[in-house]
Amino acid sequence: MNPDTLDLLKKTSVATITTQLFKRGLRNAYIQGVARLTRPSTGNMVGPAFTLRNIPAREDLDQLSVFDDPMHPQRKAIESVPPGHVLVIDCRGETRAASGGQILTTRLMIRGGAGLVSDGAIRDSVEIGAMDFPVYVAGASAPLNLVCHHALEQNVPIGCGGVAVYPGDIVVGDAEGVAIIPAHMADEVARDAAEQEVMELFLLERISGGATLPGTYPPSAETRAAFDVWRKQKGL
Amino acid sequence: MNPDTLDLLKKTSVATITTQLFKRGLRNAYIQGVARLTRPSTGNMVGPAFTLRNIPAREDLDQLSVFDDPMHPQRKAIESVPPGHVLVIDCRGETRAASGGQILTTRLMIRGGAGLVSDGAIRDSVEIGAMDFPVYVAGASAPLNLVCHHALEQNVPIGCGGVAVYPGDIVVGDAEGVAIIPAHMADEVARDAAEQEVMELFLLERISGGATLPGTYPPSAETRAAFDVWRKQKGL
Amino acid sequence: MNPDTLDLLKKTSVATITTQLFKRGLRNAYIQGVARLTRPSTGNMVGPAFTLRNIPAREDLDQLSVFDDPMHPQRKAIESVPPGHVLVIDCRGETRAASGGQILTTRLMIRGGAGLVSDGAIRDSVEIGAMDFPVYVAGASAPLNLVCHHALEQNVPIGCGGVAVYPGDIVVGDAEGVAIIPAHMADEVARDAAEQEVMELFLLERISGGATLPGTYPPSAETRAAFDVWRKQKGL
Amino acid sequence: MNPDTLDLLKKTSVATITTQLFKRGLRNAYIQGVARLTRPSTGNMVGPAFTLRNIPAREDLDQLSVFDDPMHPQRKAIESVPPGHVLVIDCRGETRAASGGQILTTRLMIRGGAGLVSDGAIRDSVEIGAMDFPVYVAGASAPLNLVCHHALEQNVPIGCGGVAVYPGDIVVGDAEGVAIIPAHMADEVARDAAEQEVMELFLLERISGGATLPGTYPPSAETRAAFDVWRKQKGL
Amino acid sequence: MNPDTLDLLKKTSVATITTQLFKRGLRNAYIQGVARLTRPSTGNMVGPAFTLRNIPAREDLDQLSVFDDPMHPQRKAIESVPPGHVLVIDCRGETRAASGGQILTTRLMIRGGAGLVSDGAIRDSVEIGAMDFPVYVAGASAPLNLVCHHALEQNVPIGCGGVAVYPGDIVVGDAEGVAIIPAHMADEVARDAAEQEVMELFLLERISGGATLPGTYPPSAETRAAFDVWRKQKGL
Amino acid sequence: MNPDTLDLLKKTSVATITTQLFKRGLRNAYIQGVARLTRPSTGNMVGPAFTLRNIPAREDLDQLSVFDDPMHPQRKAIESVPPGHVLVIDCRGETRAASGGQILTTRLMIRGGAGLVSDGAIRDSVEIGAMDFPVYVAGASAPLNLVCHHALEQNVPIGCGGVAVYPGDIVVGDAEGVAIIPAHMADEVARDAAEQEVMELFLLERISGGATLPGTYPPSAETRAAFDVWRKQKGL
Repeated sequence: MNPDTLDLLKKTSVATITTQLFKRGLRNAYIQGVARLTRPSTGNMVGPAFTLRNIPAREDLDQLSVFDDPMHPQRKAIESVPPGHVLVIDCRGETRAASGGQILTTRLMIRGGAGLVSDGAIRDSVEIGAMDFPVYVAGASAPLNLVCHHALEQNVPIGCGGVAVYPGDIVVGDAEGVAIIPAHMADEVARDAAEQEVMELFLLERISGGATLPGTYPPSAETRAAFDVWRKQKGL
Repeated sequence: MNPDTLDLLKKTSVATITTQLFKRGLRNAYIQGVARLTRPSTGNMVGPAFTLRNIPAREDLDQLSVFDDPMHPQRKAIESVPPGHVLVIDCRGETRAASGGQILTTRLMIRGGAGLVSDGAIRDSVEIGAMDFPVYVAGASAPLNLVCHHALEQNVPIGCGGVAVYPGDIVVGDAEGVAIIPAHMADEVARDAAEQEVMELFLLERISGGATLPGTYPPSAETRAAFDVWRKQKGL
Repeated sequence: MNPDTLDLLKKTSVATITTQLFKRGLRNAYIQGVARLTRPSTGNMVGPAFTLRNIPAREDLDQLSVFDDPMHPQRKAIESVPPGHVLVIDCRGETRAASGGQILTTRLMIRGGAGLVSDGAIRDSVEIGAMDFPVYVAGASAPLNLVCHHALEQNVPIGCGGVAVYPGDIVVGDAEGVAIIPAHMADEVARDAAEQEVMELFLLERISGGATLPGTYPPSAETRAAFDVWRKQKGL
Repeated sequence: MNPDTLDLLKKTSVATITTQLFKRGLRNAYIQGVARLTRPSTGNMVGPAFTLRNIPAREDLDQLSVFDDPMHPQRKAIESVPPGHVLVIDCRGETRAASGGQILTTRLMIRGGAGLVSDGAIRDSVEIGAMDFPVYVAGASAPLNLVCHHALEQNVPIGCGGVAVYPGDIVVGDAEGVAIIPAHMADEVARDAAEQEVMELFLLERISGGATLPGTYPPSAETRAAFDVWRKQKGL
Repeated sequence: MNPDTLDLLKKTSVATITTQLFKRGLRNAYIQGVARLTRPSTGNMVGPAFTLRNIPAREDLDQLSVFDDPMHPQRKAIESVPPGHVLVIDCRGETRAASGGQILTTRLMIRGGAGLVSDGAIRDSVEIGAMDFPVYVAGASAPLNLVCHHALEQNVPIGCGGVAVYPGDIVVGDAEGVAIIPAHMADEVARDAAEQEVMELFLLERISGGATLPGTYPPSAETRAAFDVWRKQKGL
Repeated sequence: MNPDTLDLLKKTSVATITTQLFKRGLRNAYIQGVARLTRPSTGNMVGPAFTLRNIPAREDLDQLSVFDDPMHPQRKAIESVPPGHVLVIDCRGETRAASGGQILTTRLMIRGGAGLVSDGAIRDSVEIGAMDFPVYVAGASAPLNLVCHHALEQNVPIGCGGVAVYPGDIVVGDAEGVAIIPAHMADEVARDAAEQEVMELFLLERISGGATLPGTYPPSAETRAAFDVWRKQKGL
C-alpha cells in the first residue's frame, strides 16, 4: 500500500470514498444501519480490518461461566487486534443485546486499536460515548452479549451491516458512517477521492457564492479552467 | 390563501396541526420516519410543496455520467424550486443511499427554498446538519443517490413517508417533524390551530401550577371562563 | 422490599441489572426499542410500575369528543399513578402516533410520578425533552394518540417493548435504557448489582492503567486479592 | 341483532364487508397478516368474538409446570368460549412460537366454537390444517406458546392483527381473511353487503360478457335499469 | 424487437433470464416480494409493461364516490392496457389494502392483457386465483384500494417490488416470479437465455445420472464436447 | 449416539422436539422464517448438520467467472456433504437472491444427502418443489446467489434462521419446520419426545371423544391411569 494512502483517507469523507467505489463497480461498500457513537478528536477512523464473528447464542453454551476462560473468543479477539487496526464485529444486525462494553472497548483503545465497528449494539453506551475513540454501532442495548451472541472466531471474512469485510480491507469511518475499501483498491481510491474533494471544495465555494448548478455542477469547461487557476492559487 | 396563514403556521406546532387535520378527517398527514437534521434559527419551515420523484435505479441507466447532463432531473429540480417552496423528495423510504448532498442543499438554500424533506437519506449529513436551513430526512447515508435512486420528474403528486404530497400542499416542519396540509384547508387549519395553542398555553400554565386534569384538561366551564379572562389580560 | 433497594438501584446501571437478571434466568428484561428523551438531573429512574394499556383505535370510538370525558382512561391513568411510581404504557410498539404529550407528562411529574415509559411515540417531544423528568419512548410523533391508540385500562399486566410488565415490578432506567425487575427479585438484584459494579470499577481502573484482559477480566486470584485491598482502601 | 344477520354474513365476502365498513368510516377492520390455514366445508366463519389476551412470557413464570394447573388461562379460555363464538387471540403479531396446537383446537371445535383467529402462529399446523374448522393464523411455528407468550385473561378488548376486537364484535372470515364488525353495525353491514354483492354478481356477468368498464363499473343509469330486470328474473 | 423474442421468453425460466441480466450488469431486475396467485395454462407471462402509479390515499380525496367517475385513473388504466401488454402497478409495497379485484382483473383479461403484476395486494383473491390468467401480487387483502392507494396516472416509469419498470420494458413471469428486461436488451437476453437453458438441460441430465459437479458444472472441455453431440442428437 | 435415536426422530414432530428442548432450557432451537418446499415421501428429514457459510457478495469478487472453478466453495460443499447429513446454509436471512438451484440440489440428493435447509431463498423452486427430497427455504427467488451471497467455507458453526447450528448437530424437519438438537442431547430428546407423543396421542383421542381439558390436559391421576391401560392395550 502507498505510504500516503492512510493519511489521505484520514482526511477524505466516506461519502467521497463510496463515490469512488461506485465508479469501480462497488455499490455495496457502506455499512448499513450503523452510526458513530463517539466524537473522537482524531479525524477519520482509518485502518485495516480485524474481524470477530458471532453466531446466535445457545442457552446451554452461553452462560456467564464462559467468561471464566481468559481465552474466550470475544476477549481473545480484543487482545489480538494489531495496533492501528479496526475491530469489525459481525452481530448479524441483531441489536437486542450488546456486542461489548466499556472494559473491552477501553482495552481495545489502550492496545492501540484504531476503532470499533459492530452491526450489533453496545452497552455502557454513555461511558463509551464519552471516550476519545471511534466507535460505530447499530444501537445501545444493555443486555450482555450472551443473550444473543456466541463469539466464535477472529479474523475471518464476515458480513457487517450487509457488507462483506475481509481481514485487511481498509475501514474508513467519519461522522457519517463507515466504508469498507478492498485492500487492493485502497491506493487508487484514496488518491482519486482526494482529487475529487479538491474539486468539490471549489464547486461548493462557487455554489455558496451564488453560481447556478448548470455550468458549475457538473463543471463546464469554463468552470474547470477557473478551478485550475483556483487550485494553483490555493496550492491544493 | 389568507395572507396570515403562513405566518400563523410559522408559530404553530406540527402536533397541533395534526390535531386540526384529524378533526377534519385526515389521520395520515404526518410524514413518518423522518426527523429534522438541522437547527434552523428561523422557526418552523413553512411553504408550498415542490416535489421530486425518484424510482429505483437501474445499473445501465444510472451511471456517474448522467451527471454530465446539466439538466439531470435531480439538478433541474433544485434549480426549479420557487423561492419560499419546500422541496419534498419521494425516495420510497429507501435509506441505503443518499437523496442528495451538500452542494445541492446549498444551492437550494441560496435560491430561497424554504426547506428540504426526503423520506430517503442524505449524505454530507454533518456539513448539512450545520446549515441554517430546515432539512428533514430519514437518515444519513454516504453512498450517492445513483446506488438506489433514479430521479425522474418534478412537481407531480408523490408519496413521502407514507403521506400523499400534492404540489402546492402546505408543508410545515418544526423540531418534531413534518405535516402536509392540503392547500384548500390551510387557512382554517392555521386559524384553528393558533386558537388551540392559545388555549393549551393556558391549560399548561394551570397544570404546571398544580391543577388536576379533571376540570382542566378537558376544561370545565369554570376553566373556560378563567381562560377568557387570562386571554384578555395577556392580549392573546 | 429492603429499604435500601431503591437507593441502590438509583446508582446501578441498567447494564449491570440485566446481567444480574440473566444470572437468574431472565434473558428478556430490557425494554427494546425505547430510548431516553430527557436528561433528568436526578440519577436513574426507579420505581414500581403502574401501567396503562392501549389497544388499536377504532374510528367510530376514538374521536376527539372522547376527551370531553374527564375520566377518559388515558387521563384517569395519569391521575392514578401513585407518587414514586413509573407509568409504563403499552402501545404495541406502534410509533405512528403519540401516546401522550406535554400537558399529561407535566401533570404526571407534578403528581410525583417517577417517570414515563412507552413503547409508542410521544408528541411535544421538544418541550418534554427539556423537562427534568425521566421519559423513555420509542420515538417522537406529532399525531395525537387517537389516530392509533385506544386507552383502555390501567394497572393490568402488559407488554412493553417486548417485555412483560406486571404492576409493581421495579422499573429502572438510566441513560442507556430501561429494565424491568420482577418485584420478588428486586432486593437481591439490587444488592448483587451493586457488588458487581464495585468490582467492575476496580477492573476498569486496572484496564485503563494498561492491564491485559487475561488475569484481569475475568479476574485471577491475584487480581481478586488486589481488589480486596483496593476496596478496603476506597471504603467501598 | 337481526336474526338473518349471521346467515347473511355466512354468504358475504370479507372484501364486500370491508367496503361497507369503509363506507361507515372504518378503514381498519381487516386483520392484517393472518391467513386461513384450513379449508372448512361450512362457508364463512361467523360469530361473536370471544378473546384471549397474551403478554410476553417471563422465564421464571412461564415454565412447563404452569400447565399442571387445569385453570391455566389458555386452557380456561378454550373451555369458556360459548358455542357459536370465535376465539380471537392477541399474540402481538409474534410468530416465533405457537399460540396453541391440535389438542386445544380440537377441544374448541368440539365445544362448538365457530373458529379460531390468532395474530400469532400455530403448531401442529399440518394436523390442524386438515381439520374441518376455520382457523386463521399468522404462520406455523413449532415452539410452544411459553417461549413467547403468557396467557393472561379472557374476554377483554384486545388488538389482533392491528385491529381492535371487543368481545361480542362480529367476526367474519372467508378464504381471503378476517374482518371485525362492531356489534352495533352488524345488521346494516350484513344487509348492505348482501345488496352490494347482488349488484356485483350482475356487473361481473356483464364484464365477463365483454362490457366495458365505462357504463358498467360504475353502472350507468342504463346498466342499473338492466340490473333491475336481471334481478327480478333471477329472483335475487 | 426480434419477432422470435417473445416466443423464446415464453419458454425460458425467470431464473435464467436474471442470470443473463446479471451478466450484463443488472443485479436488480427481479420483482421482490411478489408471487404468482394463479395457475395459467399458457406458459410464461410475457409482454411489454403498461404501468399504473398509485400514491398514498388521502381521506378527503379517496372516498367511494370517486368511482362514480368512469374515467377514474384505476379504471381508465384497465381500459387502456394494449392487448398483449402486462399491467404493472406501483403500490409502494403496501399490502394493507387491495390494488384491485375480480371485476377489474376480468376486464383486463377480456381486453387481451397479458397479465397483472402488483407489489400491493389483491382482493377477491380466491376467485382471481381460479382465473386462467397470470396474476402476480404481494398478497391477498380484502380492503378496497381507497384505504391506502390513490390511483394517479398510467404508463409512466414506476418502481415495483424494488425494481424500475419503464413502459415498454419486457415483463416475464413464470411460476417462480417476475423479471423486468429493459426493452433494448430483450433480443439478446432471450437468445442467450435460451442457449443457456439447452446447456443446463443437458447438465441436469448428467447430474441426474450421477455425474459429479467437478467436470460437469462447470462443464469441462470433455463435457462440452459431449454436449455438442447430445445437442445434435436432440436437435436442440 | 443411541442407534435408535435417528429412527425415533423420523417419527417425532418438530413441535414435540422443541418442547423437549424447552424443558432443557433451549428456547431458541426452531429455525425461524423457513418452510418446507417439497413433499418428500420419506417422513421427517433427520441427519447431522453439515454447514455452508455465505457472507455478502462483493461485486468485483462475485462474478459469473467464479463458477469456472470446480472447487468454488458452494459446489465443493455440495460434493462434501456426507451421506445422511443435512446441508444447512447460512444466508443471513437474505432472500433477495437464491442460495442454490436445481442442479446443485439434485446432486445433493443423488449423493445421499438427507436434506437441505437455507435461511435464504432458492431458485428453480417449482422443479425443486417436485423433488422427493426434503428442502426447507425462506422463499423462492430467481436471481442467482452471486447477487447477494459469497459462499465462503463449509462445516463451521453458523447461524441459520436465528439459531446456532454446529456441525454434527441433529437437524430434524417435518412438514411444519426445522429444529436443531445439540448432538449431546439427541438421545434423551428423541426418547422423551417419543414418550410425550404416545401420551398426546391418547389425550387427543380423549379430547376428540369429548373429554374436557380439566382432567385431561393436563392429565389427572385418573387419566394417567387410563393412559397406562390404553398404552398396554395398544402395545405402544
